[in-house]
Amino acid sequence: MTLNLWIHWSQLTMGDEVVLLDFHLSMFGIRVRIALAEKGVKYEYKEEDIVNTKSALLLQMNPIHKKIPVLIHNGKPICESLIIVEYIDEVWKDKNPLLPTDSYQRAQARFWADFVDNEVHEVAKKIWTGKVGEHEKEKEKLIFNLKKLEEVLGDKPYFGGDTFGFLDIALIPFLKWFSTYEAVGNMKLDYPKLIEWGRRCLERESVSKFLSDEKEVYDFVLMYRKKIGVD
Amino acid sequence: MTLNLWIHWSQLTMGDEVVLLDFHLSMFGIRVRIALAEKGVKYEYKEEDIVNTKSALLLQMNPIHKKIPVLIHNGKPICESLIIVEYIDEVWKDKNPLLPTDSYQRAQARFWADFVDNEVHEVAKKIWTGKVGEHEKEKEKLIFNLKKLEEVLGDKPYFGGDTFGFLDIALIPFLKWFSTYEAVGNMKLDYPKLIEWGRRCLERESVSKFLSDEKEVYDFVLMYRKKIGVD
Repeated sequence: MTLNLWIHWSQLTMGDEVVLLDFHLSMFGIRVRIALAEKGVKYEYKEEDIVNTKSALLLQMNPIHKKIPVLIHNGKPICESLIIVEYIDEVWKDKNPLLPTDSYQRAQARFWADFVDNEVHEVAKKIWTGKVGEHEKEKEKLIFNLKKLEEVLGDKPYFGGDTFGFLDIALIPFLKWFSTYEAVGNMKLDYPKLIEWGRRCLERESVSKFLSDEKEVYDFVLMYRKKIGVD
Repeated sequence: MTLNLWIHWSQLTMGDEVVLLDFHLSMFGIRVRIALAEKGVKYEYKEEDIVNTKSALLLQMNPIHKKIPVLIHNGKPICESLIIVEYIDEVWKDKNPLLPTDSYQRAQARFWADFVDNEVHEVAKKIWTGKVGEHEKEKEKLIFNLKKLEEVLGDKPYFGGDTFGFLDIALIPFLKWFSTYEAVGNMKLDYPKLIEWGRRCLERESVSKFLSDEKEVYDFVLMYRKKIGVD
């Protein structure tokens, strides 16, 4: 009886007010939406106009980086997508654990998620925000780095093994950007294993509900390139 | 009886073989050494000649970034200093917890540790590896970012409150680089609260034993600048 009451109270205090400041095409925001969906957390979604005008709420909640996504949990902001996903995993720990329980596997998941940010996203961004015909080194690096990720995946269904988890969430939103990397960079990427893995991920409603449309990503990038004056 | 036996076995498997590939002046390596000292973990230290020749072991253990520090625990490598410190905190969890237990505080510690890497180290590195007189924007940013860290510290003895922890470990090795940033950048930094905090940290043997000598840092940077051809 006492135990039941405690669980009830704990769910109440953990579930009360969750707000997400986000931009629908953001790979980082999509990570957070997938994590929240995996945990079954209800939240208020607030779309930000990140290209033109950032809201007063965003500037107040993330004064350091002024970037989405920001998760506001009971009035307190958490910033940086991978940190937010770990936070979600810790707070709503009873449903669908995202990080492995083994410390070495946890460290590996964190290492490769950091690799996605710094060696896939940052490298690709130089290509899709850069002038056509430049960034040959980045193109080679991107091709190489996707191969590395395929090696890490190996023959497992998901990066962490048999269950969908942290590193899958870190990478999956980028899958819908690969064709834009190819089009803008005038290059060919080769990632057959990631395509198969992507299909498996897309069988989950938490993923299929939020993954971007490739055409919309491409149109956004073309608009963005015009805005920053590279096209 | 059964419980005691289990604890004994668990300590044995956790404590057996720990090797650290490192470079004595590395801020990132020092983080790991402080964390290991806080936990009382015995390990073999292997100094790497990171400027001239990287060892075959380093290239084998960190083929992705080819960087120190690498912690090798029972033959398995863990890379990236903040990930290593979290790993150490998880594996040797009984002594001196480093990350806070509260999930929100954990997220904050991770956020500001990331800030140290990307908004202090990366900004400062542009100054100390750059040409004299350039990088005025970075200088302003560095001054501003140290003030931010002083705001985060506030009037607490340590960043996490009353006990020395994760964010203290993330920042403290950089303290001995500030005078080099000033000398090479021909600038003045203002960080009275961090000086006081640094004195408190240095009262711990885990810190005082490993923190670099300011003169040695300065000489290393001058040597490095000659090597890369900026001086």
